[in-house]
Amino acid sequence: MAVSSTLRGHRTFTGRNLSSIAMPLGGIGTGNVSIGGRGQLCDWEIYNRASKGTTLPNTFFMLRAQIGGNEPILRVLEGPLLAPHRESHGYHPSTGAGLPRMAAATFTGAYPFATIALTDPDLPLDVEIEAFTPLIPLNPQDSGIPCAILTYRVTNCSDERAQITLVGSLANPVGGIGRDRYQNLSGGGVGQNRNVARTEEHLAGLHMTSERYAPDDIHYGDVSLTTTHPFVTIKRAWLRGAWYDYVREFWDDLSDDGALTDLGYESVSEDGLSDTGSLGVVDTLSPGEQGRYRFILTWHFPNRAPGWEKQQGTPLRNQYATHFASSWETARYVAENMPRLESTTRSFHQALFGSTLPPEVIDAISANIVVVRSTTCFWLEDGRFYGWEGCFDDGGCCAGSCTHVWAYAYTAAFLFPSLERSMRTIEFTIETEPSGYMTFRTFKTFGDQFEWGWGDQKPEAAVDGQMGSIIRAYREWRLSGDQAWLADIWPGIKQAMAFALTQWDTDNDGLLDGRQHNTYDIEFYGPNPLSSFYHLAALRAAEALAIVQGDTTFASECRMAYERAAPQLHTLLWNGAYYQQRLADVDSQPYQHGAGCLTDQLLGQLHACVLGLGDLVPAEQARSALLAIVQNNFRDNFRTHINCQRTYLLNDDQGLLLCTWPQGGRPRFPFPYSDEVWTGCEYQVAAHLIYVGETETGLKLVRAARARHDGESRNPWDEVECGHHYARAMSSWALLPALTGFTSDASANWMAFDLRPEAVDQNEARVFWSSGRAWGTYRQYRNADGSWQPEVIVLGGDAHGIRVMACGQEWRID
Amino acid sequence: MAVSSTLRGHRTFTGRNLSSIAMPLGGIGTGNVSIGGRGQLCDWEIYNRASKGTTLPNTFFMLRAQIGGNEPILRVLEGPLLAPHRESHGYHPSTGAGLPRMAAATFTGAYPFATIALTDPDLPLDVEIEAFTPLIPLNPQDSGIPCAILTYRVTNCSDERAQITLVGSLANPVGGIGRDRYQNLSGGGVGQNRNVARTEEHLAGLHMTSERYAPDDIHYGDVSLTTTHPFVTIKRAWLRGAWYDYVREFWDDLSDDGALTDLGYESVSEDGLSDTGSLGVVDTLSPGEQGRYRFILTWHFPNRAPGWEKQQGTPLRNQYATHFASSWETARYVAENMPRLESTTRSFHQALFGSTLPPEVIDAISANIVVVRSTTCFWLEDGRFYGWEGCFDDGGCCAGSCTHVWAYAYTAAFLFPSLERSMRTIEFTIETEPSGYMTFRTFKTFGDQFEWGWGDQKPEAAVDGQMGSIIRAYREWRLSGDQAWLADIWPGIKQAMAFALTQWDTDNDGLLDGRQHNTYDIEFYGPNPLSSFYHLAALRAAEALAIVQGDTTFASECRMAYERAAPQLHTLLWNGAYYQQRLADVDSQPYQHGAGCLTDQLLGQLHACVLGLGDLVPAEQARSALLAIVQNNFRDNFRTHINCQRTYLLNDDQGLLLCTWPQGGRPRFPFPYSDEVWTGCEYQVAAHLIYVGETETGLKLVRAARARHDGESRNPWDEVECGHHYARAMSSWALLPALTGFTSDASANWMAFDLRPEAVDQNEARVFWSSGRAWGTYRQYRNADGSWQPEVIVLGGDAHGIRVMACGQEWRID
Repeated sequence: MAVSSTLRGHRTFTGRNLSSIAMPLGGIGTGNVSIGGRGQLCDWEIYNRASKGTTLPNTFFMLRAQIGGNEPILRVLEGPLLAPHRESHGYHPSTGAGLPRMAAATFTGAYPFATIALTDPDLPLDVEIEAFTPLIPLNPQDSGIPCAILTYRVTNCSDERAQITLVGSLANPVGGIGRDRYQNLSGGGVGQNRNVARTEEHLAGLHMTSERYAPDDIHYGDVSLTTTHPFVTIKRAWLRGAWYDYVREFWDDLSDDGALTDLGYESVSEDGLSDTGSLGVVDTLSPGEQGRYRFILTWHFPNRAPGWEKQQGTPLRNQYATHFASSWETARYVAENMPRLESTTRSFHQALFGSTLPPEVIDAISANIVVVRSTTCFWLEDGRFYGWEGCFDDGGCCAGSCTHVWAYAYTAAFLFPSLERSMRTIEFTIETEPSGYMTFRTFKTFGDQFEWGWGDQKPEAAVDGQMGSIIRAYREWRLSGDQAWLADIWPGIKQAMAFALTQWDTDNDGLLDGRQHNTYDIEFYGPNPLSSFYHLAALRAAEALAIVQGDTTFASECRMAYERAAPQLHTLLWNGAYYQQRLADVDSQPYQHGAGCLTDQLLGQLHACVLGLGDLVPAEQARSALLAIVQNNFRDNFRTHINCQRTYLLNDDQGLLLCTWPQGGRPRFPFPYSDEVWTGCEYQVAAHLIYVGETETGLKLVRAARARHDGESRNPWDEVECGHHYARAMSSWALLPALTGFTSDASANWMAFDLRPEAVDQNEARVFWSSGRAWGTYRQYRNADGSWQPEVIVLGGDAHGIRVMACGQEWRID
Repeated sequence: MAVSSTLRGHRTFTGRNLSSIAMPLGGIGTGNVSIGGRGQLCDWEIYNRASKGTTLPNTFFMLRAQIGGNEPILRVLEGPLLAPHRESHGYHPSTGAGLPRMAAATFTGAYPFATIALTDPDLPLDVEIEAFTPLIPLNPQDSGIPCAILTYRVTNCSDERAQITLVGSLANPVGGIGRDRYQNLSGGGVGQNRNVARTEEHLAGLHMTSERYAPDDIHYGDVSLTTTHPFVTIKRAWLRGAWYDYVREFWDDLSDDGALTDLGYESVSEDGLSDTGSLGVVDTLSPGEQGRYRFILTWHFPNRAPGWEKQQGTPLRNQYATHFASSWETARYVAENMPRLESTTRSFHQALFGSTLPPEVIDAISANIVVVRSTTCFWLEDGRFYGWEGCFDDGGCCAGSCTHVWAYAYTAAFLFPSLERSMRTIEFTIETEPSGYMTFRTFKTFGDQFEWGWGDQKPEAAVDGQMGSIIRAYREWRLSGDQAWLADIWPGIKQAMAFALTQWDTDNDGLLDGRQHNTYDIEFYGPNPLSSFYHLAALRAAEALAIVQGDTTFASECRMAYERAAPQLHTLLWNGAYYQQRLADVDSQPYQHGAGCLTDQLLGQLHACVLGLGDLVPAEQARSALLAIVQNNFRDNFRTHINCQRTYLLNDDQGLLLCTWPQGGRPRFPFPYSDEVWTGCEYQVAAHLIYVGETETGLKLVRAARARHDGESRNPWDEVECGHHYARAMSSWALLPALTGFTSDASANWMAFDLRPEAVDQNEARVFWSSGRAWGTYRQYRNADGSWQPEVIVLGGDAHGIRVMACGQEWRID
């Protein structure tokens, strides 16, 4: 079995619940191809932009099996196609939809691993596909390989020898496949494509190139389909014939004797056309024997558009292009380093899915790691890491590493902290002006104009985004202890912090009350909890950083501002049940929340919890407010909910609204998204509830969010908001420190654990940790005397000398 | 209940099986809007081209009900949205997806009527929507009104009085709605749109126009939403506000007091934007009372592209533009003529669905009437009627009233014979050259170039299309007795018939053996059954027409050719089990069928059966061949079927393959579609099986085809092949003469019935008939002595003097 019984948090799907599943493969900044619920390859997002719904012609794996002396049986190694089947012209022959395929599929997902079990009553072979791309904490380079590793495990369940050929076919996609209205191949950027069969030690397969594009062309690139299996059969190009004869010729060729016949084409493909190549592995399996056939799919499209939306100009280059010169080189690297890449990825996987955390939490954490490796993010030659908010089906959505959305995100900070540091560097050294005004979307970095201005005006400064970046600068410092980096960004931090007091606190009472743009894409006016908690947490973070920088004056200023504001927050905003916005007339400006119970009201406090910045308001009040949020904003179903805004939840879905007005006072037009539900908000509230001891209530929110992603209604590996793979959903990572009480300070070289009971499985607990410098597993188990025995197992990074505090014990890692 | 228990053949769907349902409303040559399974309006194909998947913003019906003194309850009058819910940005506010809606929907379809029952546990009102567009046999004009009549029946199930407002909202779509990537309204052709509230006797509502387009512009037009209810409330335009405030303002307005508030806008809409208007009816229902609220949606887009694919030039004008000057005039016509239009449509409906035919047959016949009124067809100012083969999602597919596809179609010929006559006129007076060569796609009619040529060559002449047109000319003659029309096309018929002998019979043995282009989009070579049966039937038809024309010489020529060919067909093509193609080497040319068992082998014989042209081969042999087709080509499932071509059937679908090779001899590359399944072929074989007495086997084929259209996998009112609403599927009408033994000859003014036992329900039978001049119901019931008493009920047309033969009796209709 793919999933050990000691693992939890994986998700298993069959039947209709396979229909929306697509788990992205691919690394950081590489783009993706996804493995679908039926075992099919889909969503070819390898060209440096989102491309949901795309498929490649003739691209599927097929098994030919001859059991004893029987007639060979051929099957596409995918589960049955699912309803609806309402294409205007049926399924095109190049989809392979008409070919016999496996009768049933079961998909098990535990990111970064997907396993698809395929069975067929007529075929006495069990087939299991395992798909993954290496993912190693703190190692973005080896987590950023443009590859998908597909392992086909075939077990001979018959009592006779089975001769098998397992063939992967792939259309050479370099330049981009075009189709006419009948879905026949036509147009697009392909043409002059060439498939070359190559064999070297430990590696054989097809290198797919195009002679049409120069190395600096945006379309330039290549793809390889390779295997590490020693016995291969290769057809470089399918029949270049009329009608659908190419499918038939391939079928007949494979069916005939299990060896592929190369048709001898030496010319490149015609313009608008491409060639499909097939790579087969050949084996014989004794009764009961399992064969394991590994295919490595690699791609190399080094050039990307020269800005967020800008299409003209010198292309930017992907980080991976600095390590690899071609997809073939990439394949060679993967093959040569497979033992390390695979075992380390499995270590991480085991550390996370083998933990004793509640399964819904493991699911929520792991599923949103996808965002970092999706087309929502990119990673350039110069080491800088960027993110959209999310993705349209066919491109990034909402440019500029948007500070107020990314402020919810914890995943990259803990797994790949260098990437988040590069974002802070951009924010504080490029996007922050001497006035302290910070663009909440980074455009200057590519020399772009403000594309998202207010007419000719600069964009507003976003209060949550700007304060969030200060808080995150402190987070990155705690996770790295990188003094040079901090010194570099410190002037910007100081300016950005000062800006809040001069620009947003118009009455000088310590609380922000000016025109406060924020993550709801509107401006709040007057004192309000979202801004205030963010502001207080930022002041604490800035103070701490000022002390590190030896800037005691500024540290004092922050401390004084904090001390002035904190009581005001309580006095002005606490309404006895939760924190609310104070406005004389809630309709004096559109899009306020007033007396509404805002789900994000305490977000700044959550950040303070995760980063050890302490209680900004009395803990008991925070707890009450959090419970009020759930009591008021959680819905058991959405059948009668009234939502005139965007709709993510409906029918029997359960989830947490962004705002409700339990005490009345709903504005005529509240902020645009108030009646919506965002997973990123649900997770941050859930984590916060766990911090204040309301774990079961927090877990309820997590379960609701993940249950909605049931494989039929929604893809479990794609939480959408304003786009696919939405960055805000990376708040789910905060569930990990919340449940494990994990805190650390790399500059002081310590880390600590304080597990919630819910993270403990009877007498043992195992959890994953990452301190920014090292990562591994933390265990605690009962001694004979009933006391807890803590243990840290380091799986990667440099943990030398880290002081650990747990279970009342303290020790130093050798 | 909408569907009387005496009706059969209607289809009822709930839950997931609603997801693919869209029954087109609209008339002949008018385009459509469809009523979806949940009661929603979808697929706005009102702009003279297919537009599957389109929706209009803010366009839905909503009920506000106040029961006694309780809080009002508001519901969108649609069933719940069905999975998946995987839009990248959620459902846009303008979809209304976030508004409370009815909890459950049941869709009952019996074309041209759709009924959707809506229930909600919180609402003590039952709601039923009935949707239809008038359809009257032999009256294409009143079957060609660009309208959809929506009747909302609301029953007060509470024991208190219910005050209700039932509001239909519609975005002014004139010019065409555009959307940006976020799905916000933007771009498109709208702008300068204006909604005018109008009231006149028996009619009130919104007339939606645009001032942007001149009357001869392709985008010119208007739309009206009206009601015949006396008490109305109107909001001409929703809020022109920011964000999604328009939805909220509408909701609040309706919620407030059940009366809509007009916002007083007098200006037209901005470019790229449009206004949504709302029309409400107001009523009070006593306990147990049912209110009936009728809305009439009409549209007027008189101008269409000036050719099949040509977009530039003087637009063509729709037939309906000759009757109506605007959508408001259309609404007035519908309102004023409603009693006649509705009752006659219900008469037809009752005649068809109240018949004693097997329900699957009623379903198959009625569902494909849709094709005539879909965007597959159009009907111009000059009275000429045209058809594509089918439709892409966004336009017609395969231009030119393709003769070889339309040769399968019987529906229009019997329901609207004048339309089919116009097609024959084009074929024989415009597209047939003196040589007898006939273009199988009509292009000359619009002055188009051959767009579908073979390079610079003219298109091939299609043997089945050309022979089919001759057969159909005879059919149209039998259904009309129109001597002037026949005289007009006779020279063309004669030339086209002669062409077969000179061009396709290269060895002068009577059988066609040349290069024979056909409906499989390739050329057959050598003698083959498809061509031969078509040829023989055409010879019989041509002979009969020659006699009518007094051309005894040509009649004799046809007879002699027939007598020479018929024995050859038997001798050469019968292989002991079925008729096959004879070729020395089946691979000497690609795309032949050789020894294959072709589903369409006897199609020419079916035409001869329907038209009383007799047996072209011994009846017993035809029966054997038909049974062989089913035995060899029917599949109980498609799990292991090998199809390298287009895929329409899969998994557990059942259906009839186009060809199989039970005796071996499959060519390396058989004709492109041989492994596919087409409903049009299934129906023609089914009808033929019924003709030869194998009714149960025929019905099995019909059941299989309709079962596949289960509302989840496929839309029951859209049988696709090379496009939606595919013309070939209109072969289903042939089931009616097959089961009823109906034959007629308008020129001799007689008709006859000879019912199959399967058309009889115990001791009574009721069937629909249309003779081309009149239509109605034929009944027969048992006399006391056990003999059958026949009865003809004329429901429309002019049946005066028709001689009827049935049950051994013969009489003349007064």
